[in-house]
Amino acid sequence: MLSDFSFHTERRTEAECKALLKVRRKELAGLQQRLEQAKLPVIVLLEGWSASGKGRTIQSLIRELDPRFFKVLTVNDPTPTELRWPFLKRHFDPIPAAGKVLFLDTGWMEESVRAYQRGELSDKEYEKRLESINIFERQLAAGGYLLVKLFLHIDPQCQKERLDHLAADKDTAWRVNEADRRQNKNYDRDLAAFDRYLSATNKPWAPWKIIDSTDAAKANLAAADWVYSQICAALEACPVPEHPEYHWPLAPTLPLAQVALDKTLAEKDYRKQLKKCRKKLADLHNELYRRKIPVVIVYEGWDAAGKGGNIKRLASALDPRGYEVLPIAAPTKDELARHYLWRFWTRLPKTGHIAIFDRSWYGRVMVERLEGFCTTDDWQRAYDEINEFEKELSDEGMVVIKFWVQIDKDTQLTRFNERQADPAKQRKITEEDWRNRDKWDAYETAVNEMLARTSTTFAPWHILESVDKKYARVKAMKIVIEALEEVMKQL
Amino acid sequence: MLSDFSFHTERRTEAECKALLKVRRKELAGLQQRLEQAKLPVIVLLEGWSASGKGRTIQSLIRELDPRFFKVLTVNDPTPTELRWPFLKRHFDPIPAAGKVLFLDTGWMEESVRAYQRGELSDKEYEKRLESINIFERQLAAGGYLLVKLFLHIDPQCQKERLDHLAADKDTAWRVNEADRRQNKNYDRDLAAFDRYLSATNKPWAPWKIIDSTDAAKANLAAADWVYSQICAALEACPVPEHPEYHWPLAPTLPLAQVALDKTLAEKDYRKQLKKCRKKLADLHNELYRRKIPVVIVYEGWDAAGKGGNIKRLASALDPRGYEVLPIAAPTKDELARHYLWRFWTRLPKTGHIAIFDRSWYGRVMVERLEGFCTTDDWQRAYDEINEFEKELSDEGMVVIKFWVQIDKDTQLTRFNERQADPAKQRKITEEDWRNRDKWDAYETAVNEMLARTSTTFAPWHILESVDKKYARVKAMKIVIEALEEVMKQL
Repeated sequence: MLSDFSFHTERRTEAECKALLKVRRKELAGLQQRLEQAKLPVIVLLEGWSASGKGRTIQSLIRELDPRFFKVLTVNDPTPTELRWPFLKRHFDPIPAAGKVLFLDTGWMEESVRAYQRGELSDKEYEKRLESINIFERQLAAGGYLLVKLFLHIDPQCQKERLDHLAADKDTAWRVNEADRRQNKNYDRDLAAFDRYLSATNKPWAPWKIIDSTDAAKANLAAADWVYSQICAALEACPVPEHPEYHWPLAPTLPLAQVALDKTLAEKDYRKQLKKCRKKLADLHNELYRRKIPVVIVYEGWDAAGKGGNIKRLASALDPRGYEVLPIAAPTKDELARHYLWRFWTRLPKTGHIAIFDRSWYGRVMVERLEGFCTTDDWQRAYDEINEFEKELSDEGMVVIKFWVQIDKDTQLTRFNERQADPAKQRKITEEDWRNRDKWDAYETAVNEMLARTSTTFAPWHILESVDKKYARVKAMKIVIEALEEVMKQL
Repeated sequence: MLSDFSFHTERRTEAECKALLKVRRKELAGLQQRLEQAKLPVIVLLEGWSASGKGRTIQSLIRELDPRFFKVLTVNDPTPTELRWPFLKRHFDPIPAAGKVLFLDTGWMEESVRAYQRGELSDKEYEKRLESINIFERQLAAGGYLLVKLFLHIDPQCQKERLDHLAADKDTAWRVNEADRRQNKNYDRDLAAFDRYLSATNKPWAPWKIIDSTDAAKANLAAADWVYSQICAALEACPVPEHPEYHWPLAPTLPLAQVALDKTLAEKDYRKQLKKCRKKLADLHNELYRRKIPVVIVYEGWDAAGKGGNIKRLASALDPRGYEVLPIAAPTKDELARHYLWRFWTRLPKTGHIAIFDRSWYGRVMVERLEGFCTTDDWQRAYDEINEFEKELSDEGMVVIKFWVQIDKDTQLTRFNERQADPAKQRKITEEDWRNRDKWDAYETAVNEMLARTSTTFAPWHILESVDKKYARVKAMKIVIEALEEVMKQL
């Protein structure tokens, strides 16, 4: 895309460009209200050569915009702490809310190309990285985000002059580093690398726009024109990405109706095994901390199935400095205004840590599906999106363990009644619990579909038979122990 | 406090302690609902020697608690990025919401004592640090927070045995570092340093509890007893800190009635000066980025005074990668549930960056005062709390500039009517604006008191006469330029 690019095709004079830009800026500012009404979130991604004018372009784009309406973020190379999370986490973190615009001074491109060139990513890892990025951008687009991707292009002479100019002034000299000089020296090598990235990530729902940035006024106008036209088009109709066809490696589970719920554990055995498991888990937690393995444990299940008590027993074996229990309730206003996976990406554990999700992203294909909080297309697409999400975590070395805590309808009734009768437990039972109970059959259908479509070899579901809570607690601990021992063995 | 401490005074057996602990843990869990009803936020701070069992103590304390109810946070030495903010920011960030408990595995003590011992803080800086910490803890207590501070104490023999034990196992060996060994070797020196810190920060509203941590079971019980008793006492009545008497170095401003509003700037002069200021500001922004100076600019003023346009002109001169405009609206639910300064502490600029607050913490002494959103005691205390806050920022090298954008009541009426008549501007005028206008006199009294009490030499207020908006814009830019030039000169 870059190698056959023609510079200097814009014939307008500088004065013409400036006059047109002034008009265009006002038009951009005029879009604010429409964007908010349409609840369209926009990410404007500025990539390009060193000294190609990314900051200048953003400054020009935002000149007339209301600060309540946009954010500018400069993305640097990841810090050592950021490297302890999956690559995409720090890019998911700042995604804008519906109706807002985020300007990124380099996003995920520069960091990836550089890591590859430095040899920190192998060929295969780089291929994988490009795929992760395409999935990320596709998921955002499918979730209603508009991605405007600009690449600012200059030739090596222009770059050299600019670097020299910056270096000559002590207040701007800090902006020029060794890497910039190296890029200028190896311009052709970087051109090929950029070209490969741009081609691999040029999709109809997130196309690249290459901008001749030799002349500031012309480039500013071209950028404003492109951003304006893309937003206008999206206000008419957001491009819908193709949904890929997948053949996930499944680790099938039983349909709920076939799960035998008569398993029990006597008090004495329970005490004994609990103690043994606690000891074993504490040791494994130390080991995984040392080996910097991150772990995600998901709990889903019927109301009153005993999730809370199960989590408490598991957690009590762990060092509190190395795990977190994340209770997932209805999304907040801020969360609702963003991609549905955002609140989970931002809560992922770093290496060596365990995150226990008390309910999770599977809300999408259960409560959100059944209560109509998302469209049919949304929850149907979610099975693959969730598998993509968990695959990404797994590929980055995270252990993903998922529990469905199972009881039958009669057991639930008994427990609901017990709660209602006990003043200390009354707050644990609400009108909503009774309403959900009425929808038991619809939920069971949804859960069975969820288990069938998202139990993969890299993130399998486990059923915890929890009519006898003691049995379920020990079973959960044993499954976690086994999964951790398995991953330790492989390292 | 440590040197005269007697070890081994607890005569109960291990079995007795364990039995009592079991009861106490259930009682702690039983407090959850009462805490939530009382909306009491609690910070439990664990400090102590290396290998004194801080993690173990937390694990024991949380054993029966509902994960929705508390958080555990391990605070490490600050990262290079964290060091780019004022010291207290990273400790303000995680403060709990009303009704929640935060357990801190070391808070602000360890980092401060270590920095002093390493020579990173001079004697004077350390004194200043202790004062900052006392102000921080007092402000939290005055804001309704309960601080439970525990110091786990062991003697040098006990410490040595534990370090040896940890080092012997490869899964725990990583927990023992050079600093721990050094501490054991220089036990007496560290004892004196800890003692000094504990004595300096032992206040009636945030007292220290020294716990003999030689024996795990006894220490766990003592910690649970103390936390339980402190929470129970606070549920009865939170200790009210003494409010200090201050003599702030004031930089007085005129009462609003005396501000002459006839200042104007002709269009031609405006264009010329705007251009000059923009150029100058851009250069200064580069320089302050290079010199890593953080800047806070506060805008307050009447509705329709022209804050938005003023901010836009100032911001357009700056590199968007180095500043942020922060529009402050009514607090969210999360913000309301915390200390009122929390949402500002968390938004402070890092070194080299500029944060422009479009409205600010001064809401406390204006809208919150007049609408009764806080108690009389709250807003009266706030003048000093805000001065303390800005002094802390200033002492850490931040430039603090505050603008009051002033118009008269007639000008406001004209602008309100213009907005009402113009379809493109109608959304900028609301019922609330008219209601606020009705309270003009009460606001004027509040603003005058605010200007008189919070215009300090380290964070002065500047009046921007904005009947002629062009005049006000150029004046704002000139004041920023002057303040930045002043600080550059001093460095």
